[in-house]
Amino acid sequence: MFYQDDKLQYEVKCGKPDPRFAVLLQQAIGGVEGEIRVAMQYMFQAFGAQGPKKYRDMLMETAAEELGHIEMLAHAVALNLKGAPTKLTDEMAAKDGAVAAALGGMSPRQYLSTGLHALPQDSQGTPFDASHVYASGNIAADMLANVVAESTGRALACRLHHAANCSDMKDMLKYLIARDTMHQNQWLAAWEELGGVKQHPIPDTFPMDEEMREVSYKFLGFKKDGGPPPRGRWSEGESIDGKGEFSSEVWEPRGQTPDLGMAPPAAYAQTSQTEASAKSVAKGVKKAVKNAVTPDPKKKSRASKKKTT
Amino acid sequence: MFYQDDKLQYEVKCGKPDPRFAVLLQQAIGGVEGEIRVAMQYMFQAFGAQGPKKYRDMLMETAAEELGHIEMLAHAVALNLKGAPTKLTDEMAAKDGAVAAALGGMSPRQYLSTGLHALPQDSQGTPFDASHVYASGNIAADMLANVVAESTGRALACRLHHAANCSDMKDMLKYLIARDTMHQNQWLAAWEELGGVKQHPIPDTFPMDEEMREVSYKFLGFKKDGGPPPRGRWSEGESIDGKGEFSSEVWEPRGQTPDLGMAPPAAYAQTSQTEASAKSVAKGVKKAVKNAVTPDPKKKSRASKKKTT
Amino acid sequence: MFYQDDKLQYEVKCGKPDPRFAVLLQQAIGGVEGEIRVAMQYMFQAFGAQGPKKYRDMLMETAAEELGHIEMLAHAVALNLKGAPTKLTDEMAAKDGAVAAALGGMSPRQYLSTGLHALPQDSQGTPFDASHVYASGNIAADMLANVVAESTGRALACRLHHAANCSDMKDMLKYLIARDTMHQNQWLAAWEELGGVKQHPIPDTFPMDEEMREVSYKFLGFKKDGGPPPRGRWSEGESIDGKGEFSSEVWEPRGQTPDLGMAPPAAYAQTSQTEASAKSVAKGVKKAVKNAVTPDPKKKSRASKKKTT
Amino acid sequence: MFYQDDKLQYEVKCGKPDPRFAVLLQQAIGGVEGEIRVAMQYMFQAFGAQGPKKYRDMLMETAAEELGHIEMLAHAVALNLKGAPTKLTDEMAAKDGAVAAALGGMSPRQYLSTGLHALPQDSQGTPFDASHVYASGNIAADMLANVVAESTGRALACRLHHAANCSDMKDMLKYLIARDTMHQNQWLAAWEELGGVKQHPIPDTFPMDEEMREVSYKFLGFKKDGGPPPRGRWSEGESIDGKGEFSSEVWEPRGQTPDLGMAPPAAYAQTSQTEASAKSVAKGVKKAVKNAVTPDPKKKSRASKKKTT
Amino acid sequence: MFYQDDKLQYEVKCGKPDPRFAVLLQQAIGGVEGEIRVAMQYMFQAFGAQGPKKYRDMLMETAAEELGHIEMLAHAVALNLKGAPTKLTDEMAAKDGAVAAALGGMSPRQYLSTGLHALPQDSQGTPFDASHVYASGNIAADMLANVVAESTGRALACRLHHAANCSDMKDMLKYLIARDTMHQNQWLAAWEELGGVKQHPIPDTFPMDEEMREVSYKFLGFKKDGGPPPRGRWSEGESIDGKGEFSSEVWEPRGQTPDLGMAPPAAYAQTSQTEASAKSVAKGVKKAVKNAVTPDPKKKSRASKKKTT
Amino acid sequence: MFYQDDKLQYEVKCGKPDPRFAVLLQQAIGGVEGEIRVAMQYMFQAFGAQGPKKYRDMLMETAAEELGHIEMLAHAVALNLKGAPTKLTDEMAAKDGAVAAALGGMSPRQYLSTGLHALPQDSQGTPFDASHVYASGNIAADMLANVVAESTGRALACRLHHAANCSDMKDMLKYLIARDTMHQNQWLAAWEELGGVKQHPIPDTFPMDEEMREVSYKFLGFKKDGGPPPRGRWSEGESIDGKGEFSSEVWEPRGQTPDLGMAPPAAYAQTSQTEASAKSVAKGVKKAVKNAVTPDPKKKSRASKKKTT
Repeated sequence: MFYQDDKLQYEVKCGKPDPRFAVLLQQAIGGVEGEIRVAMQYMFQAFGAQGPKKYRDMLMETAAEELGHIEMLAHAVALNLKGAPTKLTDEMAAKDGAVAAALGGMSPRQYLSTGLHALPQDSQGTPFDASHVYASGNIAADMLANVVAESTGRALACRLHHAANCSDMKDMLKYLIARDTMHQNQWLAAWEELGGVKQHPIPDTFPMDEEMREVSYKFLGFKKDGGPPPRGRWSEGESIDGKGEFSSEVWEPRGQTPDLGMAPPAAYAQTSQTEASAKSVAKGVKKAVKNAVTPDPKKKSRASKKKTT
Repeated sequence: MFYQDDKLQYEVKCGKPDPRFAVLLQQAIGGVEGEIRVAMQYMFQAFGAQGPKKYRDMLMETAAEELGHIEMLAHAVALNLKGAPTKLTDEMAAKDGAVAAALGGMSPRQYLSTGLHALPQDSQGTPFDASHVYASGNIAADMLANVVAESTGRALACRLHHAANCSDMKDMLKYLIARDTMHQNQWLAAWEELGGVKQHPIPDTFPMDEEMREVSYKFLGFKKDGGPPPRGRWSEGESIDGKGEFSSEVWEPRGQTPDLGMAPPAAYAQTSQTEASAKSVAKGVKKAVKNAVTPDPKKKSRASKKKTT
Repeated sequence: MFYQDDKLQYEVKCGKPDPRFAVLLQQAIGGVEGEIRVAMQYMFQAFGAQGPKKYRDMLMETAAEELGHIEMLAHAVALNLKGAPTKLTDEMAAKDGAVAAALGGMSPRQYLSTGLHALPQDSQGTPFDASHVYASGNIAADMLANVVAESTGRALACRLHHAANCSDMKDMLKYLIARDTMHQNQWLAAWEELGGVKQHPIPDTFPMDEEMREVSYKFLGFKKDGGPPPRGRWSEGESIDGKGEFSSEVWEPRGQTPDLGMAPPAAYAQTSQTEASAKSVAKGVKKAVKNAVTPDPKKKSRASKKKTT
Repeated sequence: MFYQDDKLQYEVKCGKPDPRFAVLLQQAIGGVEGEIRVAMQYMFQAFGAQGPKKYRDMLMETAAEELGHIEMLAHAVALNLKGAPTKLTDEMAAKDGAVAAALGGMSPRQYLSTGLHALPQDSQGTPFDASHVYASGNIAADMLANVVAESTGRALACRLHHAANCSDMKDMLKYLIARDTMHQNQWLAAWEELGGVKQHPIPDTFPMDEEMREVSYKFLGFKKDGGPPPRGRWSEGESIDGKGEFSSEVWEPRGQTPDLGMAPPAAYAQTSQTEASAKSVAKGVKKAVKNAVTPDPKKKSRASKKKTT
Repeated sequence: MFYQDDKLQYEVKCGKPDPRFAVLLQQAIGGVEGEIRVAMQYMFQAFGAQGPKKYRDMLMETAAEELGHIEMLAHAVALNLKGAPTKLTDEMAAKDGAVAAALGGMSPRQYLSTGLHALPQDSQGTPFDASHVYASGNIAADMLANVVAESTGRALACRLHHAANCSDMKDMLKYLIARDTMHQNQWLAAWEELGGVKQHPIPDTFPMDEEMREVSYKFLGFKKDGGPPPRGRWSEGESIDGKGEFSSEVWEPRGQTPDLGMAPPAAYAQTSQTEASAKSVAKGVKKAVKNAVTPDPKKKSRASKKKTT
Repeated sequence: MFYQDDKLQYEVKCGKPDPRFAVLLQQAIGGVEGEIRVAMQYMFQAFGAQGPKKYRDMLMETAAEELGHIEMLAHAVALNLKGAPTKLTDEMAAKDGAVAAALGGMSPRQYLSTGLHALPQDSQGTPFDASHVYASGNIAADMLANVVAESTGRALACRLHHAANCSDMKDMLKYLIARDTMHQNQWLAAWEELGGVKQHPIPDTFPMDEEMREVSYKFLGFKKDGGPPPRGRWSEGESIDGKGEFSSEVWEPRGQTPDLGMAPPAAYAQTSQTEASAKSVAKGVKKAVKNAVTPDPKKKSRASKKKTT
């Protein structure tokens, strides 16, 4: 379970509030590379952890850390919005196309929906969507997914550091960038402890002779002109997982031309697509066409009856 | 199956990079009127094609074409982002409300998430959502859906052509606009070959005497004052599908006043909404109210027991 | 503006409540082929209508009609949920894999979130998403979009009619199917009045000599083996819009091999991707590598300073 | 910031695992009435809290509590999935339509994506979407939003308790239902402390003489037949906020008939909708029509030139 | 059912068109605090209404009113877009980072997708998502949900009023703000009529002695240091619902350390996580490892066979 | 650009059609672990590729391959839906709660929206959402993201293989599982070629002495009781990237207690939260309160004036 206190994990100051930076910071809160995502990802991996117990513990520790990062960044957004413009003025009005963004380039909802605070959304206003929480039930896949999350997260933090025009914001980001360095190393450490590249292909519990071994280590080429596929470490030598030899091949189709035949009557496709043998429908269509010309005066639905009586 | 080569379908240059145009181009990539949508729509229509085989072939050909359009547009975005501003500077800072958009009006994720490249999202940052892929299993509906996709797509391309401030971008769009012209004609050709307006109502396999014929060709009016509905081609003369006569009528309700009665106990509505005859619940409520005043000291849940013992 | 009364547009009864049909009906309420979509689509087309006034009027009339269809279908869902199972029982429990769906095959939220009522979602639980509201500002594109909406809507209603196991539900659907017949004809009538196929390509306001005429009426082939594209009405004869001649061509790439060169330093790509001339970054990287081995004891961030002093 | 330990807030057992209940529990995890929503809602309200400090503290305490509820429910899902069927067998196969749900009625992703664990999604598979996090920057609105979240949350928990077929699950839910009782009271307490109904209308900082007072306490009727609006506490007597007198009125339109005139050329509407005065476009259209008949052989786009030379 | 006429509910003028205000207005149309949401919320609450009939009537009346508000706001957006810039010009081009937003700060789709009209989306381009329609089947929860919707809606309208730079827009908003005042009062009136705070906890049909009474009125503290929870109206005195006494407690975990043991073979976790007793899988893994070294030349899948013969 | 032919990449047969398997296969088409995702991910990584050219080529080749996998799986879905039940029958009706899923456990839209075909959605009906396309502009991050996609993809394929009740489906999956083996190896090969673990932290272009080195290799503990963090490869020894030494530390907050002070008037918070110095608002509020008691008869909005004159 979780606990809290009333301090920030690391100091957050803002000497030069800038509503435009408040937009960009949202990516680190609610973006797919952001802190809500990793906090929830580590939590759900912990909640479903099976096998060696120490991984659950590690996941919960870092989940708690990431929750604190959300808090820091949300505070940074609020500080950057201090004194932000909340009125449209004539100077900005639509003249010669030379107008600026509404509200000084803020995310409009940072004013309209919250009164100058952070939201659980990304820099473009897309709300955080929890389908980005990867918790596959396979610990090696999860550890690598975490390395990726921290790699794209660190790239994001570096870009924010580059964009920032305020040394306080840069200082906060230096802390977060360093934590992403550790987290990349930490999940890589777990992945190596579990076997590293040699535990691939993930999952390692599917019997390899059950897969179609002939194509397990073959780079397939799909060039229009049948030319050779690109060469590299992946086209020759022992495979990275140590369980095969790389080769490459220009692939020729091995499957049939797909043919689904005619549609069944229940599909309500057009007549031209529909099974000829579908007698009852065909009859209905014929009747429908006939009816279109000479409607049957005796056949009435409930509503018609009611009305005419 | 699909193949590729390393050339673009049509030349893409960019003499005057403009990060603001990179925002707008996203609509043509990941917008509901965009190329990812049509590429996937034609593919899924092909995958489910039933009936005459040539339509599947045509769909696959044009799907391959549209995949190449995504590539062209993504390249155009990257070219427009060359040299784009990636730092917030003082000149733009929040002063007198006269600030510009963050990062020169770019989609923030075009820098923060990709390092100056295209994303599968629209001009407002909404990720492409595949529920926009229409493949109904009815070929006539699908052909018309494709005409619409190419009509809104061409309107979009014309608006982009109008907004563009670079002759290279305009040249690329002239190619795409022309292709939309062909594609509108091509899907209309298929729709006409299949029967055109005379195959309506779609689907043509539902027996028309099974529908309530009385209202099949009647324009219904819902004016507050009971006034007559608007007149036009739809209010008199033979119907477009040739199967009826248009007329119009001020509609009067033919249905009952809906009344769902009281809620069942299992709904956990409020007492005031709930079936009186629901004895077990009612009893529970009474007990609850009583308990609220004098909690039963003997009744304890598992946790309480554990704690007090 | 809108008004209401307390009657249903058409009678809705339910002799044989079936929670499974309540699931399917949701598609007609909140699905992409459903009534919320068309009600909102006709409204937003009306709100943005420009040009001849009668179309706005027609759109508003039918929007009001569709709002009444949502009401009918929501009532039908509630009636089908009368007496639905709300408890999991042992008979259904996980034994030999032979278990049924939870809650008798209902959409779980139909019980859990509403206490046995309809929701603005589709048959699979996806909430209605208003990006499906097409209102392009181009009246011809909009009229055709409406024909498509009514065509997929009628296909849906026919499939529901086929699936239904209750004559009351079938009766209600006969009314709705007939209305879809009218609505297809009505939007086709408007489209024909505006010019029909001859007003294509849509929009008709873009000067055609501004597009790349050479490919405006050419079916392009993308076969792997360079074989001829499929023949049909679209490959020869006058184009459907009457403004060109159809032909076809195996397409060869006309564009360059895309080459974006090296990444700028601000992209925070890997070193192997980054511009050699980016001196300041390169220096930083070198320093970083050096620092990795021998951290500079003099350089400290704010936090470190604070701690050690 | 946040901390954690390795115990559950309250005991979670599962004597009768049932994969169908694992589906239903998802609503309490990732549904709009669920625990992820309230945990994040209380957090973001705390992050943006302004004014009296004790509310921030209270919000953070309860956010920590709700994080622990997510953990409990995720554990309950995993326990209910123990031994769940993961194979399709012949007994269930499509025969006479009498087949069951795939995988014994589980959410398919509970097996396919996680290997039998919980996901941050609702009972219908919709991923949690953070736009449901209400943090308006107005404390009274937020406190009431929390009362609502806990009311729908308690209704959900009661329905789950009703559906459950396992006393252990019922025991866990009794704890959660009791907490929802407290949380409703707690947010109501804060709302009352802040002024209760007398602080309405929210926000209380907008000068009331700036709004159109004439309609501030008037129930408006929109009956088709102009009949009187429904009477109740809202139609007479002092208003709830104590700042006016209730009355009611049949509303007549006070606005104009909306008329947007013709579309500008840049809209790329159809010609029939477009401003007559738009000479340059009109000329283009005329030229386009002319070109359609006799294409100008001298005008060529870049690509055409390239090809023919 | 619904009816319409061709007038606006209240006059909408626009003396100073401003495309930036057209962006902001979108929040009131398609935002979570906006009019589409309340219109649909009141409709779906009405469609599912059970119990006293007057509430259904009231809900339908106000639903009709809100539909008219959508129309007013969509008209206001179109008026604000009159004459908006639709071209990118050099003055705005990417120079020294001092560029403005594309298209004068408009929502790009307001031009690209509609030709200068409103869309059913919020101010950040997120399409309206109907999961925000709260209709819980519990009338008290619904009435409070409506108070919240009108409170956040009024806060939004006040912020728009503040931002507006045009007295016509301010006049329209004064009407809408006043209606939100009434609507807050109206739903509060219904809630009070139904019992007000004394009908809490909602739902009032769950027997209170079935919940774990021990924690029903206890504020729980989760401070890291075990310190006391914040004091306030919620920590002592009679509970707001009058059914208990408030107290507070530092919570200690009462649950177990969660332990899901090893993963079953079907989970396709890694070997290190998987049940040792899973013989068949283990055997497969062993074989797989063996095969990795010495592939069995006799074992071939269908495809391989086909090819080599 | 892309090309196609009319054969499947690998043979797809279906000896035992099963609509329940058609549900499960959707996860491999439109799920976050599915083929649409990887096809688009490799495409967008290629479109944005910078640096060594061979990676772009490799990405395009495998993108083409994955497009063919979508086709195969969509065909498999259609084959599994052959003869699927499309009617609700009495045998399945709601009796004793012992009912099955609607339509034999199919995804309802597989019948209702397509007439028995595949959709670009996952096994739970969530449409594919392109925010899952990771293309970060950093090649090392992208290669690892691809390893993860193929790891979760292979876990999914193994689970489908396990669930399948048809040897033809198993045969198709053996091909796909083998391809996932190759793809994991292929992306790992590229990642190793680029530097493997030694190029971490990603991005390697951010100067490491700019991050807060003190915490770059320190595992931080957040235990409630201040106990030591979990030990493992990540807590001692050289860091995986070779640039530091692992250690661990119980973290103490280094940041301040966040305090945002009072809200500005423009936030439209409640009075109790708002800056006392905000004179103009305060005056407004006072006037509002006064007006609430004695409305100023002289102040009227435009509409009121109009009406009374």
